[in-house]
Amino acid sequence: MQWVKVLGGVVGAAALLGLGIILGHFAIPKGANVPAPSVSQDLDLEILETVMQQLEASRIRENLRELSREPHLASSPRDEALVQLLLQRWQDPESGLDAAEAPAYEVLLSFPSQEQPNHVAVVSPTGSVVFSCRQSEQNLTGEQVGPDVVPPYAAYAPPGTPQGLLVYANRGTEEDFMNLQTQGIKLEGTIALTRYGGAGRGAKAVNAAKYGVAGVLVYTDPADINDGQSSANETFPNSWCLPPSGVERGSYYEYFGDPLTPYLPANPSSFRLDPDAAPGFPPIPAQPIGFDDAKSLLCQVNVSVHNRRELRNSSNVLGIIRGAVEPDRYVLYGNHRDSWVHGAVDPSSGTAVLLELSRVLGTLLKKGTWRPRRSIVFASWGAEEFGLIGSTEFTEEFFSKLQERTVAYINVDISVFANATLRAQGTPPVQSVIFAAAKQIPAPSPVGLSIYDNWIRYSNRSSPAYGVVPSLGSLGAGSDYAPFIHFLGISSMDIAYTYDRSKTSARIYPTYHTAFDTFGYVDKFVDPGFSSHQAVARTAGSVLLRLSDSLFLPLNVSDYGETLRSFLQAAQQHLGGLLEQHSISLGRLVTAVEKFEAAAKALEQHRSALQKGSPDPLQVRMLNDQLMLLERTFLNPRAFPEERYYSHVLWAPRTSSVATFPGLANACSRAMNTSLGSEAWAEVRRQLSILVVALEGAAATLRPVADL
Amino acid sequence: MQWVKVLGGVVGAAALLGLGIILGHFAIPKGANVPAPSVSQDLDLEILETVMQQLEASRIRENLRELSREPHLASSPRDEALVQLLLQRWQDPESGLDAAEAPAYEVLLSFPSQEQPNHVAVVSPTGSVVFSCRQSEQNLTGEQVGPDVVPPYAAYAPPGTPQGLLVYANRGTEEDFMNLQTQGIKLEGTIALTRYGGAGRGAKAVNAAKYGVAGVLVYTDPADINDGQSSANETFPNSWCLPPSGVERGSYYEYFGDPLTPYLPANPSSFRLDPDAAPGFPPIPAQPIGFDDAKSLLCQVNVSVHNRRELRNSSNVLGIIRGAVEPDRYVLYGNHRDSWVHGAVDPSSGTAVLLELSRVLGTLLKKGTWRPRRSIVFASWGAEEFGLIGSTEFTEEFFSKLQERTVAYINVDISVFANATLRAQGTPPVQSVIFAAAKQIPAPSPVGLSIYDNWIRYSNRSSPAYGVVPSLGSLGAGSDYAPFIHFLGISSMDIAYTYDRSKTSARIYPTYHTAFDTFGYVDKFVDPGFSSHQAVARTAGSVLLRLSDSLFLPLNVSDYGETLRSFLQAAQQHLGGLLEQHSISLGRLVTAVEKFEAAAKALEQHRSALQKGSPDPLQVRMLNDQLMLLERTFLNPRAFPEERYYSHVLWAPRTSSVATFPGLANACSRAMNTSLGSEAWAEVRRQLSILVVALEGAAATLRPVADL
Repeated sequence: MQWVKVLGGVVGAAALLGLGIILGHFAIPKGANVPAPSVSQDLDLEILETVMQQLEASRIRENLRELSREPHLASSPRDEALVQLLLQRWQDPESGLDAAEAPAYEVLLSFPSQEQPNHVAVVSPTGSVVFSCRQSEQNLTGEQVGPDVVPPYAAYAPPGTPQGLLVYANRGTEEDFMNLQTQGIKLEGTIALTRYGGAGRGAKAVNAAKYGVAGVLVYTDPADINDGQSSANETFPNSWCLPPSGVERGSYYEYFGDPLTPYLPANPSSFRLDPDAAPGFPPIPAQPIGFDDAKSLLCQVNVSVHNRRELRNSSNVLGIIRGAVEPDRYVLYGNHRDSWVHGAVDPSSGTAVLLELSRVLGTLLKKGTWRPRRSIVFASWGAEEFGLIGSTEFTEEFFSKLQERTVAYINVDISVFANATLRAQGTPPVQSVIFAAAKQIPAPSPVGLSIYDNWIRYSNRSSPAYGVVPSLGSLGAGSDYAPFIHFLGISSMDIAYTYDRSKTSARIYPTYHTAFDTFGYVDKFVDPGFSSHQAVARTAGSVLLRLSDSLFLPLNVSDYGETLRSFLQAAQQHLGGLLEQHSISLGRLVTAVEKFEAAAKALEQHRSALQKGSPDPLQVRMLNDQLMLLERTFLNPRAFPEERYYSHVLWAPRTSSVATFPGLANACSRAMNTSLGSEAWAEVRRQLSILVVALEGAAATLRPVADL
Repeated sequence: MQWVKVLGGVVGAAALLGLGIILGHFAIPKGANVPAPSVSQDLDLEILETVMQQLEASRIRENLRELSREPHLASSPRDEALVQLLLQRWQDPESGLDAAEAPAYEVLLSFPSQEQPNHVAVVSPTGSVVFSCRQSEQNLTGEQVGPDVVPPYAAYAPPGTPQGLLVYANRGTEEDFMNLQTQGIKLEGTIALTRYGGAGRGAKAVNAAKYGVAGVLVYTDPADINDGQSSANETFPNSWCLPPSGVERGSYYEYFGDPLTPYLPANPSSFRLDPDAAPGFPPIPAQPIGFDDAKSLLCQVNVSVHNRRELRNSSNVLGIIRGAVEPDRYVLYGNHRDSWVHGAVDPSSGTAVLLELSRVLGTLLKKGTWRPRRSIVFASWGAEEFGLIGSTEFTEEFFSKLQERTVAYINVDISVFANATLRAQGTPPVQSVIFAAAKQIPAPSPVGLSIYDNWIRYSNRSSPAYGVVPSLGSLGAGSDYAPFIHFLGISSMDIAYTYDRSKTSARIYPTYHTAFDTFGYVDKFVDPGFSSHQAVARTAGSVLLRLSDSLFLPLNVSDYGETLRSFLQAAQQHLGGLLEQHSISLGRLVTAVEKFEAAAKALEQHRSALQKGSPDPLQVRMLNDQLMLLERTFLNPRAFPEERYYSHVLWAPRTSSVATFPGLANACSRAMNTSLGSEAWAEVRRQLSILVVALEGAAATLRPVADL
């Protein structure tokens, strides 16, 4: 009888709000307005300002210190302790949420063996060990030793002890191995030394195995991560640079989600694939090493990998603030909790912000000052580092409910890579709400500029509709937004503070996934004073409130038109000639984009008209449903049968370098060197039809709802 | 700028309604209430009664006479003329709808050659023709000749002129051919004579080809269709029985939808499969014949099939009555338009009802007396006989829009098979609204009984919740509801009047798909006086109005619990032992069903509580969304990858005879005789997980919307 509980909750909420109104009127000084729980409840700018003011940098710092005090690898005791910390915060009587829980999934993770440490050594022709790589990072701050610091390893790489001649294979891309072969270098049975970047982790092993390589080493090149700095005195703890012994850990699994339960939640009794037959694992042993060791390698190398796969329980923590007016509309805000070691930057900088934001909102809630129009769901995902596992299982378990009701997903994983500028990625409908938030929040520096004004100085583009605006990045699959956008078709975004690219070309912040990613590192080098953390908390918090509280959803669908137009232009420019040679016209695609643009523009005008009038609550809801569900219309689960989870016809992975519709671009790349009537050219035409139907279908949902 | 037009429409509608209110108050006698366009607009019982009274049997009869005056094979000139007739009716200024249009698809149909008629003959060992089958039906009423009467043929059967020994293969099931082989009968190169029934049309040819059969003949057995009557004086025009020369035409295509554009609308520029490589066509020539000819066949038979496949334009006609309050919620009502010959029963009996219903509603609309709360969409589908093509293409083209917004789909194809009793098929949520309608409408006979009371006498079951109730059938894929329920997951139903099964065991009405299915046949034998047609019009009309006008959607989700429980019991009883032997427990399935039942019951209580109070419009909308979208939660496009379109985990085709969850039942059938660790047993476990996740996911959508 769970609804009784919640009905009680709603009634209770109404009573609280009623009480709040009375209190607001009689007991609280002017300025603390308590919105009535009416169907026209809208964003309250005073509440928004209150939230912005109450987000404290010092509290974020304290959160981070606590979160990153110990290593908290997925499913470890400390990871479970943080589950309890989150639950405690979200169930706090004074600053907690309406409800919180921590359901667990049973998922396949991968760990190095404690008894038989992974090992990389140079051996002489007689087999004696000439040189051994370190098995752990150097203890520079007292935090790099201890039983909870997991030694560097390549998660999901199979065990094995290959030995062979060392071959330097650059970034381990397909092209890199092909070049080596072309140069007459024998690859069969070798150990490939590769550096991070250019290709995914797992892809390096997959590519290598195709050429008969027996094992793969992956190191972090100082040129890629440290702007060339490599000596001890140039690196942490003397700078933010990666020390010579630092090793990037990471998952080498090719897909995401629990490897044994694709498309099914990893509940204990769920059907599981045979682990020895499940796809996506690296085919050969792999091991990451530091650049100091990488320098020392030569000739014959022996790699011993003793990783084991284990079924483990991994929890998500979920908390909800129930909506006062439309509780069936969810704004999701999440980040993962698990780290490779202490994970101060990745992911605790995001979780520290999450906790501060939930504290401020929870406090307003518990005081009865505020309740959002729509429901807000906070999530702390488990086992992200192993492949976005917690979030993916959650989307599998609640597919229908989430797809029907979720307004948007906000991801703040690493909240601060560096303290120069905001960086946001997302699908076009969220651009406007991020801009609106960023315009009203002061940048940490320089003084006097808004976050928006500062952002536009670092990264901008020319928009046909708006002129020069900050450049919104697109979403790949680098964090927990991936299942939400690619599998569920929910408008998503990822928000962080990041680098001044004129000052560093580091591939990512230098201590990423190493034992040097600690509180001290953040406090000293990444964001002293935590003002960038606060800026991200405010930006993400403002976006969250605007989405949860605005009467009209602040999602701009006509901004999708700009993306479609630019994809179309790229297709015409780079693929048009090739397609024409095969008698394939882009004419219907042009028409479809035009129809989308016209329908989106008309819908925005309809919104303006409604906003000026006094629409009834159902008119607003109908419009909001169109806005919320637009992203869903781009999903086609049959478009890319070989790409697990990827169903979004606009954002599926693109292997082609042409920045256009991925299905079309990929199909063209594959067809390019095939004959006229090939299967590959049929696939190009199929992909074009899938795309046209998706865009026409999307336009149909934007048109007046009672149009035939 | 299409929205301007519609905004105008809505404003206009409001003005009209306003005017209507004034008129209703001052100018119209009491009783003609005009509902105000308020957010709480609810079903008006007086309007419902008015509609019931205005549905005239004589007008349905006139509609049928006109619709079945000439043969109207899909895409023929007469079919196009009927498109114009429908458009004219739906655009009529006094009884039309708000808007109507007739978009066409370009689809692959199949026709016999005029120059080379299909031909079946008995030949002597020397090759001379000993006997020839008729190439057309006997002209008994003057309507069986003429250029528009398509000769009997098996649509989509490939051309070919096989010749071989005749083998009688019963119904052409897999088992039938296996039995023949077991008996030592050589099948290679033979012509199989089969009778209709037992297996699908195309399946007979597929099964035959597996055994090397060269050609298939299919006849209608008098035992199956005529209760044994077979002489000329026992059959039409002397009774409703099929004359000896009657031949059932039909599509022999194995899937549905346009064969060349699966999952894509068949627009002219859509990607098309190579017709010679597209799956689903019969692998060998096939030809239907009458029972008179079937008797005469013996020994060596020559079959000449000269069917040709052609791309043709086929139109749907769509008409809309825009909703006054929730125009973005659609109640769809449809039937196909195309027939094999005159098609008086199939499908014109349904179209005649459709036109009468649209006339009555259109008249109320144009008078300003009434506008539904939600939008009503009427559809006349093209090319159903070739495989539900028009409706399927429509669902492919507007997938997202329909899936997001459609409340239910009502299909009335053949409206009257016979005049004994109502027969309804549908998914559980529509049972209650059909019952409610049927209880309030008098049966044509016997006098004094409601349609419901009469129905329960012919077909009933014992419901745990309600006691003895009429038996609602389940939906296969026999008409245009198939893409709506199986592909889109929209709650659907099919409504008709049908046989007294104690009086006939006919497989279907005898002249089905023959040249004897004419107006005179209906007028004289099927429904003299058209009172059964009127009863169907009233029932379907009442269901339509209840769905379009009720403030709370009359969909009962807890009735799904009864189906799940009965499926579960069948699984436990018939599969439980087998599963236990393979260590597969149904425990989680039991729990999932229990969770569903509890959530559904609580939701119905929540509905009652809301109905007693004065809910705000958003509370009603939120509840209605849960009711409307429940059916969607049972879809899993990845559940049955080999079954085109079928995504509904509860209603996918079931080959097993156990009346339970189809995926589980089918997987068990396949696994039964395989070894313990086989792929087939893994598939059983996978199907069980898919099912549990679907039921748990469905229950999650029924629980209070702000539950975690």
